[in-house]
Amino acid sequence: MTADPHQLVARRLGIDTHSEAVVFLRKDSVISRSEGFTSHNRILLTSPKSQVIATLYQVEGDFLRRNEAGLSNSTWRILGLTEGEMIRAQHAPPIDSLSQVRRRIFGQRLDEDGIHRIIGDIVAGRYSAIEIAAFITACAADPLSADEIIALTRAMVSNGERLHWGSAVVADKHSVGGLPGNRTTPIIVAICAALGVTMPKTSSRAITSPAGTADTMETLAPVTLDQKAIRAIVEQEGGCIAWGGAVALSPADDILIRIERALDIDSEGQLIASILSKKIAAGVTHLVVDMPVGPTAKVRSKDAAMTLEKGLVRVAGNFGMQLRVVWGDGTQPIGRGIGPALEARDVLSVLRCDPEAPNDLRERSLELAGALLELAGKLPDRQGKTEATRALDDGRAWSKFQRICAAQGGMREPATARFGQALVAPHGGTVTAIDNRRISRLAKLAGAPEDKTAGVDLHVRIGDKVAPGAALCTVQSQAEGGLAYAMTYAAANADLFRITPP
Amino acid sequence: MTADPHQLVARRLGIDTHSEAVVFLRKDSVISRSEGFTSHNRILLTSPKSQVIATLYQVEGDFLRRNEAGLSNSTWRILGLTEGEMIRAQHAPPIDSLSQVRRRIFGQRLDEDGIHRIIGDIVAGRYSAIEIAAFITACAADPLSADEIIALTRAMVSNGERLHWGSAVVADKHSVGGLPGNRTTPIIVAICAALGVTMPKTSSRAITSPAGTADTMETLAPVTLDQKAIRAIVEQEGGCIAWGGAVALSPADDILIRIERALDIDSEGQLIASILSKKIAAGVTHLVVDMPVGPTAKVRSKDAAMTLEKGLVRVAGNFGMQLRVVWGDGTQPIGRGIGPALEARDVLSVLRCDPEAPNDLRERSLELAGALLELAGKLPDRQGKTEATRALDDGRAWSKFQRICAAQGGMREPATARFGQALVAPHGGTVTAIDNRRISRLAKLAGAPEDKTAGVDLHVRIGDKVAPGAALCTVQSQAEGGLAYAMTYAAANADLFRITPP
Repeated sequence: MTADPHQLVARRLGIDTHSEAVVFLRKDSVISRSEGFTSHNRILLTSPKSQVIATLYQVEGDFLRRNEAGLSNSTWRILGLTEGEMIRAQHAPPIDSLSQVRRRIFGQRLDEDGIHRIIGDIVAGRYSAIEIAAFITACAADPLSADEIIALTRAMVSNGERLHWGSAVVADKHSVGGLPGNRTTPIIVAICAALGVTMPKTSSRAITSPAGTADTMETLAPVTLDQKAIRAIVEQEGGCIAWGGAVALSPADDILIRIERALDIDSEGQLIASILSKKIAAGVTHLVVDMPVGPTAKVRSKDAAMTLEKGLVRVAGNFGMQLRVVWGDGTQPIGRGIGPALEARDVLSVLRCDPEAPNDLRERSLELAGALLELAGKLPDRQGKTEATRALDDGRAWSKFQRICAAQGGMREPATARFGQALVAPHGGTVTAIDNRRISRLAKLAGAPEDKTAGVDLHVRIGDKVAPGAALCTVQSQAEGGLAYAMTYAAANADLFRITPP
Repeated sequence: MTADPHQLVARRLGIDTHSEAVVFLRKDSVISRSEGFTSHNRILLTSPKSQVIATLYQVEGDFLRRNEAGLSNSTWRILGLTEGEMIRAQHAPPIDSLSQVRRRIFGQRLDEDGIHRIIGDIVAGRYSAIEIAAFITACAADPLSADEIIALTRAMVSNGERLHWGSAVVADKHSVGGLPGNRTTPIIVAICAALGVTMPKTSSRAITSPAGTADTMETLAPVTLDQKAIRAIVEQEGGCIAWGGAVALSPADDILIRIERALDIDSEGQLIASILSKKIAAGVTHLVVDMPVGPTAKVRSKDAAMTLEKGLVRVAGNFGMQLRVVWGDGTQPIGRGIGPALEARDVLSVLRCDPEAPNDLRERSLELAGALLELAGKLPDRQGKTEATRALDDGRAWSKFQRICAAQGGMREPATARFGQALVAPHGGTVTAIDNRRISRLAKLAGAPEDKTAGVDLHVRIGDKVAPGAALCTVQSQAEGGLAYAMTYAAANADLFRITPP
């Protein structure tokens, strides 16, 4: 008898397939033939330490040997392998919870247990991308009921880590997003912490935007902190602005959101579960949601905003969380800079009360901080913003921010880009529209967020009058190539800024 | 200025991703960074000859160079490349028809034009697997209307090749499937062609079953024939049994069916469009549908069978096709052999009127051939089967079959397996159930359909009395390993055959 063909030499291919585990096997390997494997089959891989169900792609080329299993990064990580270790491959057993997904597709409601099992299997990596796509689609086609949203939120919370703080009030702020430059978080944390409201903020890096709060904050201080460090900083300063990636809060959300974005499907129920599961897992008790509304923002109409607000408040209430939605103008970017370092520069100028600081960023931050101070019971209604303004203007917020940065590992000044080029007005007139989505795209083409200095520096706002040839914005990049792509895109999208002649 | 980073050296990786085009790029390549590519992005690739939208996986390993684009087989084929050629990569433009899919998800019906554009984009490879999964799920969650099924069928037909025959009657037979060994097609073609009914049969290879008609027929004669050869054979003999892969009939069906199978979602509307689009494209005017009904067959209940029958007849009528459904017993396999060569052996024994020929296969073939002869107007009602039986018994069908084989390139005898092992009754009693699905799995584990000789040879049928230790079936394989896996599976699934003690 020859060696067991189910045993394969694991080889790390360095392929990034996000959360979906992928395995590559030779089509002419003994195991492929004997097991009747074909591409897209789901294969159970077993290492000495762990197991994972991976999607199979068969290989005819010679970059793999017949006794090798090529693994994607996620597969490698879950299996906890070291190079050259042996793994075992066999057909994956059927995933029971998929029958729940199928029943949901064909019109039956899911109960608490069904949703819990689906989310548990998704987090354990047992679903392929197309199976997750089917689940997401089914929940959008026949919208999640109130009970289902609550059950989904609970399942997402319980399938992940959960933080507990020694404080009765743990404040947080979430932005529904879609508005470039809307980097109020560091300012709000500084104000709230300065006024004695605990705000242990963990933020994400950008997935599809030119900057996440963590990307921006990283240009000012270290943000990759473990739970112990975060606790120590919050204990000492009452707040932090850390990257959330070190703590696995609602990992289901990270998996689902990738597929939702790829499909460009935003169903309200999943959006609510996505926002709230992260916050509940983070131990938040009082949450202010920043909801910019505008034709090119994420929430495009008042009706959509109202329905979303109702859903958020109801589900949060079910988990004992107090939640207030603050609507805002979503017609144009906030602040001037778009891109990590450029946004950090604006944040600093607001905290330092620089007379040149962008007023819209300052006002929005004060409004949200005020709402949060009131919601958290720190201040009576209608006095939050006044007190927040005082804490900003008298330097307490700036001093708190510096202490937080020091506690996180030391404050630094954001870098500036090597190359910059202005985009000029083709004719004179009044700026009547700025396209949020395409401004974001422009900043990304310049290199944001990987290139922290890259992005767009806006020089005009809606309502400004411009002369022909006036600079509308400056595109910045560390790389001449990045700058060139961005300018080519800008040239092809002359209506990024709408300028109405007088 | 350096070389244009959008230009990459194409490298064939030999990875089989089915119809979904996939491209692998280094994460640290200039293009990945400047374009802000991330894994799962959809990338437009342009070769000197063609274009394709591919799903990106980013690579950190060293099996790709920074200026290389690693391509899956489908990507390579569509781009029509030769090794070392340069291709261009950029973000794919948005696919307009996806907005139709999104609208369908959120409850709006699709019109003819919308469906046509969706199917056109799917056939052109512009949809990722998860986008196709979303489309399929949406059409199952809110079932396709009669108009949508007709529009979907038409769109699938028009996005592919279409055959036209010089005959007013072009007969065909389709089996809804799920029943191992149900290999009536070669027999039906021989009978109908012998009686002067044109039957240009193109069949598929197995995707998930142990044998497709093309796999079985290939053990008897060549089946890989181009359109010209098929036409010549049909002209001369009135029928053929060829592999359909050389003609792109309803290519959308091939793409959709892969994802449907992976999701295990069978929606009636898509099943109807799948069956009929292939037949309409093949120029069929008269179609008999073999629908075995049974607890482990594809159609599991009378209700499901009746609804499906109604849908098939209605949609076929809309395209001017006459269709008759013939229900059948789907409780157990038909014939004795399961696997290409074993089924071919049964087919030959029926055609040769061997007294040992499996009677169920003979009867089912005669019934279906009779129905088709009547539907095609060749014989009056209730005389089809009688005349079919006469043509089989007097040797006309056998003689026609030999001529068809000769015309296809020459008849041959099916090979037999090197290894075989019997599965025996653990105790005496009566066989009361045989599990179609797991019998198929057993045959596949033994190596079918790649190993043409592999499979299962059944020795008992429901109702048979068996003594303890009696052989229930023989598992056959060219490979000792394949046989061993199959036997291990059989040992773990003792209830493949249910034997009720006396």
